[in-house]
Amino acid sequence: MGMWVGRGRKARRCYGFDEIALVPGAVTINPNEVDIRWKLGPYSFDIPILAAAMDGVVDTKFAGAMGKLGGIAVLNLEGVYTRYDEPYKVVEKIVAASPEEATRILQTVYTEPIKEELVATRIKEIKQAGVPAVVSTIPQRACQLGKIAEEAGADILVVQSTVTTVRHISSEYETVDFARLKSMLSLPIIVGNCVTYNTTLELMQTGIDGLLIGVGPGAACTTRGVLGIGVPQVTATADAAAARDFYFKQSKRYVPIITDGGMSTGGDICKAFASGADAVMVGSAFAKAQEAPGKGHHWGMATPHANLPRGTTIEVGTTGSLKQILFGPAELDDGSQNLVGALRTSMGNCGAESIKEMQLTEIIIAPAIKTEGKIFQQQQHVGMGK
Amino acid sequence: MGMWVGRGRKARRCYGFDEIALVPGAVTINPNEVDIRWKLGPYSFDIPILAAAMDGVVDTKFAGAMGKLGGIAVLNLEGVYTRYDEPYKVVEKIVAASPEEATRILQTVYTEPIKEELVATRIKEIKQAGVPAVVSTIPQRACQLGKIAEEAGADILVVQSTVTTVRHISSEYETVDFARLKSMLSLPIIVGNCVTYNTTLELMQTGIDGLLIGVGPGAACTTRGVLGIGVPQVTATADAAAARDFYFKQSKRYVPIITDGGMSTGGDICKAFASGADAVMVGSAFAKAQEAPGKGHHWGMATPHANLPRGTTIEVGTTGSLKQILFGPAELDDGSQNLVGALRTSMGNCGAESIKEMQLTEIIIAPAIKTEGKIFQQQQHVGMGK
Amino acid sequence: MGMWVGRGRKARRCYGFDEIALVPGAVTINPNEVDIRWKLGPYSFDIPILAAAMDGVVDTKFAGAMGKLGGIAVLNLEGVYTRYDEPYKVVEKIVAASPEEATRILQTVYTEPIKEELVATRIKEIKQAGVPAVVSTIPQRACQLGKIAEEAGADILVVQSTVTTVRHISSEYETVDFARLKSMLSLPIIVGNCVTYNTTLELMQTGIDGLLIGVGPGAACTTRGVLGIGVPQVTATADAAAARDFYFKQSKRYVPIITDGGMSTGGDICKAFASGADAVMVGSAFAKAQEAPGKGHHWGMATPHANLPRGTTIEVGTTGSLKQILFGPAELDDGSQNLVGALRTSMGNCGAESIKEMQLTEIIIAPAIKTEGKIFQQQQHVGMGK
Amino acid sequence: MGMWVGRGRKARRCYGFDEIALVPGAVTINPNEVDIRWKLGPYSFDIPILAAAMDGVVDTKFAGAMGKLGGIAVLNLEGVYTRYDEPYKVVEKIVAASPEEATRILQTVYTEPIKEELVATRIKEIKQAGVPAVVSTIPQRACQLGKIAEEAGADILVVQSTVTTVRHISSEYETVDFARLKSMLSLPIIVGNCVTYNTTLELMQTGIDGLLIGVGPGAACTTRGVLGIGVPQVTATADAAAARDFYFKQSKRYVPIITDGGMSTGGDICKAFASGADAVMVGSAFAKAQEAPGKGHHWGMATPHANLPRGTTIEVGTTGSLKQILFGPAELDDGSQNLVGALRTSMGNCGAESIKEMQLTEIIIAPAIKTEGKIFQQQQHVGMGK
Repeated sequence: MGMWVGRGRKARRCYGFDEIALVPGAVTINPNEVDIRWKLGPYSFDIPILAAAMDGVVDTKFAGAMGKLGGIAVLNLEGVYTRYDEPYKVVEKIVAASPEEATRILQTVYTEPIKEELVATRIKEIKQAGVPAVVSTIPQRACQLGKIAEEAGADILVVQSTVTTVRHISSEYETVDFARLKSMLSLPIIVGNCVTYNTTLELMQTGIDGLLIGVGPGAACTTRGVLGIGVPQVTATADAAAARDFYFKQSKRYVPIITDGGMSTGGDICKAFASGADAVMVGSAFAKAQEAPGKGHHWGMATPHANLPRGTTIEVGTTGSLKQILFGPAELDDGSQNLVGALRTSMGNCGAESIKEMQLTEIIIAPAIKTEGKIFQQQQHVGMGK
Repeated sequence: MGMWVGRGRKARRCYGFDEIALVPGAVTINPNEVDIRWKLGPYSFDIPILAAAMDGVVDTKFAGAMGKLGGIAVLNLEGVYTRYDEPYKVVEKIVAASPEEATRILQTVYTEPIKEELVATRIKEIKQAGVPAVVSTIPQRACQLGKIAEEAGADILVVQSTVTTVRHISSEYETVDFARLKSMLSLPIIVGNCVTYNTTLELMQTGIDGLLIGVGPGAACTTRGVLGIGVPQVTATADAAAARDFYFKQSKRYVPIITDGGMSTGGDICKAFASGADAVMVGSAFAKAQEAPGKGHHWGMATPHANLPRGTTIEVGTTGSLKQILFGPAELDDGSQNLVGALRTSMGNCGAESIKEMQLTEIIIAPAIKTEGKIFQQQQHVGMGK
Repeated sequence: MGMWVGRGRKARRCYGFDEIALVPGAVTINPNEVDIRWKLGPYSFDIPILAAAMDGVVDTKFAGAMGKLGGIAVLNLEGVYTRYDEPYKVVEKIVAASPEEATRILQTVYTEPIKEELVATRIKEIKQAGVPAVVSTIPQRACQLGKIAEEAGADILVVQSTVTTVRHISSEYETVDFARLKSMLSLPIIVGNCVTYNTTLELMQTGIDGLLIGVGPGAACTTRGVLGIGVPQVTATADAAAARDFYFKQSKRYVPIITDGGMSTGGDICKAFASGADAVMVGSAFAKAQEAPGKGHHWGMATPHANLPRGTTIEVGTTGSLKQILFGPAELDDGSQNLVGALRTSMGNCGAESIKEMQLTEIIIAPAIKTEGKIFQQQQHVGMGK
Repeated sequence: MGMWVGRGRKARRCYGFDEIALVPGAVTINPNEVDIRWKLGPYSFDIPILAAAMDGVVDTKFAGAMGKLGGIAVLNLEGVYTRYDEPYKVVEKIVAASPEEATRILQTVYTEPIKEELVATRIKEIKQAGVPAVVSTIPQRACQLGKIAEEAGADILVVQSTVTTVRHISSEYETVDFARLKSMLSLPIIVGNCVTYNTTLELMQTGIDGLLIGVGPGAACTTRGVLGIGVPQVTATADAAAARDFYFKQSKRYVPIITDGGMSTGGDICKAFASGADAVMVGSAFAKAQEAPGKGHHWGMATPHANLPRGTTIEVGTTGSLKQILFGPAELDDGSQNLVGALRTSMGNCGAESIKEMQLTEIIIAPAIKTEGKIFQQQQHVGMGK
């Protein structure tokens, strides 16, 4: 389980979504009859897809719409919605910026302090839609904002940074203690992001309720380019799944893992489940929804970093309603619409009756090699209606 | 026979056409003296190449022309020719559509119901050319349309969907039982598509007469992008060939396998046989024929899917007659013409006297890596006449 | 020495030039003091590079110029120079053709019969330059044209086709018997092309004097695209070298191998020697010479094939004199000029005093992966004068 | 530790930066609290990054600025600054040249002889900034220029050529003896470039004080294209690190290794340390500094080679001050600014408190495969402030 990269130095080969494919099952199932529900703490959700806490994707209205459709959209408590009374003016300004100005404008916009009263206001706005309010913060502010959020009625708290571990060393600031945070708050806590077996296990052992898996997953990912750090998602998810299953055996507590990042097609989402995920978190797929506040633009929270900005504002365009993106009918043939339909069909073809069974489906290594000089591209010519 | 992709998770490395090449034999044979015939049930065919059941490629005239040249063109009983009295108007409309409109127009066109009387009419049109009529349907309608087709004089029935298995679970609709279908009909039945050793073996054990091999084979294949599912064709074909050979040993019945999809050059067709195929099915190669009704356009049957369309209308242009595409003389140097000549020459150079021998030719792994900065590209400078 | 590509099917991983690199030696040598000479039969040559028998590259004047510089340029006895009294008019016509017309024009031009008296004339033209005359033919005409060539004073005969073996089966035409050809003619004979250990050994055992190694070597090679056949050159050369060394041990006769094709930079030439070559044959590198009759255009002899043309006319432009291409000074930094200087410098850095030592230099596997998103490209900043 | 590339021929798989990634640690550290200092001989430096001895990057003013910021910029004693009294006119001419003229102009410019008095002048100019003067020469002139440099007050001497070994064979010129050079001079000597375990060890045993690691590292590197020679930097660095650690055990003397070349992002720099480097040398990253004399252009010292020029003048543009490139704040998100911040953040995320610990961080093999057809690119959406 390692190859020599130099004298005395071994490295493990890790795999990303582009390098694998799923194998059809010996039994197949009518896609309408597979079960895709998942659970987090006391909650059960109809669809195992979360919208990422990005300001261009999730505002309180989007969170409401997503909740009604059976999913989760995470509102970022560190974003514009808790910094500004009138956040849409700010979003508009970001969206209108040229690529050259964007990084600088973002850096400025996010220096505005977070207003605690707005945290409560936004959570209440989500609750008015009659859906669970799921909000996120960084580890450093988890105690402070977590308390406020819980009081305001938040249902789930997400504590997220690029790399999260149980042990963070700093003499400059106080580091978060997840066990203490759990004892302080009574709502379920999702923590991320992490990637290795050991870190996953250690985080689960603190008592937290869910984990986000993924650090620098994509080949094009800025974290990998800027910091050299990154683990491809198939391996990261499979490792975390192994830790989850070990922890379940040890503690009888099942802590779901949510694969976050690196999925660029509906097929990648299917592969994440086959790699072991209980749910997935995606961002730009939802940036294309009519309901997304960014009007087809999105940006990550590493983008406005004051000293080491990573990423920029990306325009993906608006292609349809959130409902269409989740359930179709797809008007595009590229896998960006009807994500739930794609998952159901994939599970049906793999013979998986539930997410738990999909986690066991056969994976093969089959790199997506691009070749020139292709002359006649054979299209799939299959019977309709299936 | 597996590599670790994550803790406790192994995956098998599978191979596609781009990753392999064939090795010349120690003996070579005059291409004119190799035997490329193959058999399906009671029929023998001069060339082991089938045209896929795509509406832009195969109408009844095309099927007649192909049959006369020694091959098979499959007419889709679920396509426009059995839905419309005047199908060419519909084809014209599809061909004239812009890429943006195409998916929607296709979705509309294929909602028109299939007319049973047209099924009979089309089969008779093919029979008038004095060639075997080979027609296709999806599993759900196999009993109904198969009966009508047989009565109308069809010679071979193809039952095809994206992923076909012996066991399909559904409470919403009745699933096909291939053993029962075989007992109901007396004509040979080809079933597809499938990819694994076990599924191939199970399908052969139902008594069917031929199998289509290939699910999401190409890197660019929509099935792989949308569903994450796909097995590269070299591995899929070799696995199916192993099942065929085992089944033959067990039952003394030889069920040919037809590699379907993923072949984009004449060289890929040669590699399919070297991987174990008895015949190959190609689509867009034939879409380029003057005889193809799509006038240089083709589209798959997954394209008009109401909820999850995959693929779109592709324009490949018209490059020559069907005869030229099969037998040359080639006017293009790209392997898209004289497919039969390419197969014969390849077999001659590999020292294979028959398709059975070609199935044993040496394969090597030799990825088609694309490199930049190439300065002088050496062209093959070989003696003429060979 | 094999990987599973499917059930019961193993394949060997083969390597091309793009996938390897050479390792500097523990000792280095002044490039001016390495020995690059090689021998073929009774002849010794100063530089181990041959110009391929392509009509756009080698006419009798080019052969004379190349010979004077210490190398070999092979004149094709099947090309325009032996078909036409005034071949330059024909070359001009080919060069002036548009890419669309080129294949058809070539197909026409090469139907003109070979004139035996021109064979003698051309050989004499080369001999007038005071250099060995090296001419090529296809196996089918080797006896007939070989006899004429020898009588006209040719010094070395090349017998070349895409794939050459000792055993070719045909009932339509007589096949060449190399042992008989050797007994018929007294001049040294080079035979090609071949790729495997066994075929190399069998061909050497017929008594021939040199071998051309390479079948469909490049990823972009038409033979691989059209026929699926090809072996990457590092493996092909190393296998042939092993056969050469075994045959030498067995017979005390050293039969040099000439790697032919797949080299696209000066670095690739260096790698061919490190893989085991005694000499290399290149085409388009020389098509760029002012002396080349094609005025910066070249085409292979498979291009005018009547039924299955492979390749087309390629324009590479004229970049300098033949002397400059071989010995510099290079005005281009892309490795297309000063090929001999590059070989000497590479040998010096690898610590190889002779071609024989260069055949033992350490090879590593180091794929030339192309990556996007490169930000600052570090240039080599080394001391001058070395 | 080797794969068969042909009969009797094994090759080792080597790895470059694009093929690996780093794994986050189980413990993470506040980036401000990691230690990135390194030592060379009696000197200690705050940042482990050297600017390469390229005329478009380093003049005496740049060397002063770099030294004040805690790093090293090497002035080339073979460049324009020691050949011309007024070097900026020459630099201007090179910068203004079209790509076509550039190689020829460079070839001319560097024929001007080196003036010994200018060597002293330039060194004194650097010393006036109050920083160590680090200057470079080629092996052939190391004794002569080293003596002059030492007398003029130089603090460190770099002796650099494409491939440097302890044993160089030549009857035409005298070869350098590093042990003798060390005894002649009292200042620390850095030697390079080299790549293998044995050569690294042998060079360390001569008594030299530091080593530059890297020969033809990049896929696009001219040395690899022209000469076929090159070892990817992860393997080269890990091998050299193993030799360094062995030599330290043997001699109790720690000779730092400086990875030179092949780094094209800040992430690559982080990976170099994880591969075993004590420091890194980069060129074009600094060519983008306002302080660089090339005004956004750079060229290597192999470029003006009279017979075998490699590389050309490259325009990278000016993007910010040297301070910004080293310490940020980054205005670009591509990893080309705040290199020190990136290194600190990467070390923090990997849980490495020092360069020595970073050398032990876990490496994985995770190729940066480029895939087409990506539909929604997920951006990293992490908490701010970390």
